Amino acid sequence: MAYNLLKGKRGLIFGALNEDSIAWKVAVKAKEEGASIVLTNTPVALRMGKTNELGELLGAKVIPADATSIEDLENLLKESMEFFGGKIDFILHSIGMSPNVRKGHHYSDLDYDLLLKTLDISAVSFHKILQTSRKLDAIENWGSVLALSYIAAQRTFFGYNDMADAKSMLESIARSFGYIYGRERNVRINTISQSPTMTTAGSGIKGFENLLDFGDRMSPLGNASADECADYCIVMFSDLTKKVTMQNLFHDGGFSSMGMSLRAMDQYNKGLEHGSESHNDHIYD
Amino acid sequence: MAYNLLKGKRGLIFGALNEDSIAWKVAVKAKEEGASIVLTNTPVALRMGKTNELGELLGAKVIPADATSIEDLENLLKESMEFFGGKIDFILHSIGMSPNVRKGHHYSDLDYDLLLKTLDISAVSFHKILQTSRKLDAIENWGSVLALSYIAAQRTFFGYNDMADAKSMLESIARSFGYIYGRERNVRINTISQSPTMTTAGSGIKGFENLLDFGDRMSPLGNASADECADYCIVMFSDLTKKVTMQNLFHDGGFSSMGMSLRAMDQYNKGLEHGSESHNDHIYD
Amino acid sequence: MAYNLLKGKRGLIFGALNEDSIAWKVAVKAKEEGASIVLTNTPVALRMGKTNELGELLGAKVIPADATSIEDLENLLKESMEFFGGKIDFILHSIGMSPNVRKGHHYSDLDYDLLLKTLDISAVSFHKILQTSRKLDAIENWGSVLALSYIAAQRTFFGYNDMADAKSMLESIARSFGYIYGRERNVRINTISQSPTMTTAGSGIKGFENLLDFGDRMSPLGNASADECADYCIVMFSDLTKKVTMQNLFHDGGFSSMGMSLRAMDQYNKGLEHGSESHNDHIYD
Amino acid sequence: MAYNLLKGKRGLIFGALNEDSIAWKVAVKAKEEGASIVLTNTPVALRMGKTNELGELLGAKVIPADATSIEDLENLLKESMEFFGGKIDFILHSIGMSPNVRKGHHYSDLDYDLLLKTLDISAVSFHKILQTSRKLDAIENWGSVLALSYIAAQRTFFGYNDMADAKSMLESIARSFGYIYGRERNVRINTISQSPTMTTAGSGIKGFENLLDFGDRMSPLGNASADECADYCIVMFSDLTKKVTMQNLFHDGGFSSMGMSLRAMDQYNKGLEHGSESHNDHIYD
Repeated sequence: MAYNLLKGKRGLIFGALNEDSIAWKVAVKAKEEGASIVLTNTPVALRMGKTNELGELLGAKVIPADATSIEDLENLLKESMEFFGGKIDFILHSIGMSPNVRKGHHYSDLDYDLLLKTLDISAVSFHKILQTSRKLDAIENWGSVLALSYIAAQRTFFGYNDMADAKSMLESIARSFGYIYGRERNVRINTISQSPTMTTAGSGIKGFENLLDFGDRMSPLGNASADECADYCIVMFSDLTKKVTMQNLFHDGGFSSMGMSLRAMDQYNKGLEHGSESHNDHIYD
Repeated sequence: MAYNLLKGKRGLIFGALNEDSIAWKVAVKAKEEGASIVLTNTPVALRMGKTNELGELLGAKVIPADATSIEDLENLLKESMEFFGGKIDFILHSIGMSPNVRKGHHYSDLDYDLLLKTLDISAVSFHKILQTSRKLDAIENWGSVLALSYIAAQRTFFGYNDMADAKSMLESIARSFGYIYGRERNVRINTISQSPTMTTAGSGIKGFENLLDFGDRMSPLGNASADECADYCIVMFSDLTKKVTMQNLFHDGGFSSMGMSLRAMDQYNKGLEHGSESHNDHIYD
Repeated sequence: MAYNLLKGKRGLIFGALNEDSIAWKVAVKAKEEGASIVLTNTPVALRMGKTNELGELLGAKVIPADATSIEDLENLLKESMEFFGGKIDFILHSIGMSPNVRKGHHYSDLDYDLLLKTLDISAVSFHKILQTSRKLDAIENWGSVLALSYIAAQRTFFGYNDMADAKSMLESIARSFGYIYGRERNVRINTISQSPTMTTAGSGIKGFENLLDFGDRMSPLGNASADECADYCIVMFSDLTKKVTMQNLFHDGGFSSMGMSLRAMDQYNKGLEHGSESHNDHIYD
Repeated sequence: MAYNLLKGKRGLIFGALNEDSIAWKVAVKAKEEGASIVLTNTPVALRMGKTNELGELLGAKVIPADATSIEDLENLLKESMEFFGGKIDFILHSIGMSPNVRKGHHYSDLDYDLLLKTLDISAVSFHKILQTSRKLDAIENWGSVLALSYIAAQRTFFGYNDMADAKSMLESIARSFGYIYGRERNVRINTISQSPTMTTAGSGIKGFENLLDFGDRMSPLGNASADECADYCIVMFSDLTKKVTMQNLFHDGGFSSMGMSLRAMDQYNKGLEHGSESHNDHIYD
């Protein structure tokens, strides 16, 4: 069901890799809600994923860009404005990757060149998009910018590694630039801290399914799905949330405000009944 | 402009006193978005304010109820369900009053009977609404409940007095009951922490205009208005925010994430230039 | 080992029931660190517990007082100052009790008279101590006041019931009164949010042992003990923490900053291996 | 006055440039409390500042090291352990610098190579110290590690620039590594979020004196001094705070929990009385 919440708006979406991507679902719903869309991804992701397919489906322009490259971003923003015939109303940043995680470096054995890459890809890219947009005056007054985050920015999850630090920085950038862009152009900048989600990115994380189970039992409403996250993004892009800025918005079925649910405790207790000797063989993480 | 976001939904709204009330504006917008409405207020407020007028305007039923009385709430909920021909989809709690503030008792000279009244009116009433609703199974699955709060729940503002403690408790009730009502009926419960707003309630607070000025200069988007707050309530009542629960959502133009803006500092500095001897004569608060 | 951290200081301690009480251990350590002590508890608790025994052990005066009674508090503070021959340097509030929990009322079936009692005993009593102290000018400049809290003030734990709302209010009172007493007398007011602890109070909570196990596995340093909590109280009473005020200080082995530890997840996973059908028979909480 | 709180302990202190440095005062007090000290700073800072002088004063060894260089850190830690004849009990990280601020790049015109330097110097260095320490097993069981932070990690202060993002990341590293080092060696890792302080670093920030004035009037206890911060560091290094970890501890006279004080509002109001036209000529920041 559509409401015309984004009628006439123009949106730029980073990170729609395939049907599992939150960004994919945001693009689809934004279109349904009346928006014109530009999709972007790195050239490699465009080859590996299905972004072009989505572009055809939505009548969206697909523009390759590495979000860590100012040159690419300048080109992306200019081409987007040309395609739209005007400035951009909303932007979604759904980008995150840790080469340290990929290469199996534990958080206590980080490769520091790779850490800077994690930061550049997952956090600084957000600043680069904002700074380049501001220089080109590419975002319409009262525009809305979102980045997707995770509660690891506030609390430590084993195995999440240097992505936790990157997400903390990402949320800080939303605040820092939200101040600048807000006072100058009334542009609001927020992050949505989403439940763990079985996307291509999420599925790479160790023990992810059990973490999903825990989250689901802890959260009174269960984990939030990618589809539901897309709904939340739509309202944050709409004109009904104009004064919400510099916030990190938990979209997680209540997980962030839970200490312990009965359902999760019951499951935990079953483990206790069966003894506490460890019989799993995963690598210490 | 309306989107049909609440088409077919039924909402119960506490605290629509007059045109300045946030609850008033929520009722008007909810109606525009397709909802049926029941308005409620205490018998005294119904006589003093214009709730009945609003009822006529919106074709809404007006039911008197003291939100601290279980009997009144039972009657209210039953009559509402009769009027609607079914369960309630959303509830707005916009109730707050401190008899200590009214009677001029400083926070360090509280009357403790009045403190319990502040708590009963401004916080426990929220629990009473929820508990009574649950007993009568009055809220539809996936319903949405909101209460209006203020950042004094987290940070101390001189003169806000025992309302700060009441708002802290209000936000805690939203979490505590959000867990219960979420796991059982998927009902979500949140608070919106709104900018200081020039309502009838707000205008009673000492030095309120200057506080508004400070908030406006600190917030990159300026203070959020009552109208904008109503917009935010609408999206929180809509089906697009189903997995947001147990949250306190700042709707304040960015104020909550600011330490110091240049605009507020400039104003402050002007005060410094003119000397730091105190030349105001208000009572120490 | 003692450091003379409280040499010459005078402390008033609420809630030292027996050897398991955190307040008991604070009293013992405060004495070791050079303080003179007054102990207080309700007349009933004095009969049931061992406070008088502790008084003899420490050469401390024991003064009966119901912390919800202004009259009792006035008497307590006056007698304390007489005993000390001067003002009080530090106060510990370790008081909490929910008649709703005692009588088995679920959070969705609260007795509201009992809720007001929970609040009066567990939160408002803190305000009463502070307000009465201020009126009698009973606390020395740069004095330090602590109350013991729990993370349920921020996150929902099943079964913690209306104590969660009371703790939220308690922490708010620490901030609100911390502002007043700080600006006037440089008195600092903080709460310590302690790990779940096997005291007489703690042991009454349903499923408490398993919650302790979970906390212990989640916290990188394990749960904090009552003894360790007493150490932390000592430093907060000492002259080395003079500018810390209006804070809620987590003393929990890291629990509050954890999302998921490997150790807790391992235990949880064992429950998963053994199927997810529920085979416990406790009452739904 | 000394208490022997650090008797027999061995501490490594980064960033003691001159008498104004917080790290300087920590070193002096740690010595008074019975600790042996190693001081370290970059070779440039050793030439420009007075670290060597302090070394002589305290009988401390001074070892040059660039905290962004793993090689330097390895050497530093090995030499420290040799000097101490054993492992290190506590570490203070008091390092922060933004080349973007130095070169006058506004936050909306960052040089991204310099941003990575800001991060490397001000945040990643903390990880490098911890990772290298862990690899060399250089920290004693139950050791304590602190880094100095600022509330800009949570709230935006104009002009604080990319240091805000660096401090957010620094605090995240404290949590992430606090989990690892806690579970393995019971080492606790915290940050202290200190009032703005007139150190050599602080004095470079634009409009810093007025910000100090505002902080002082907002905080019920006034701004915390460098001396008082050193006191707080001592207790966090002592055995009395063993279970406090992964926390950001505000040491700020109450500033972080204030929304508005009467004293700050009075000053602000004076600015209002004198008109709101801007008559300052600083560059928009």
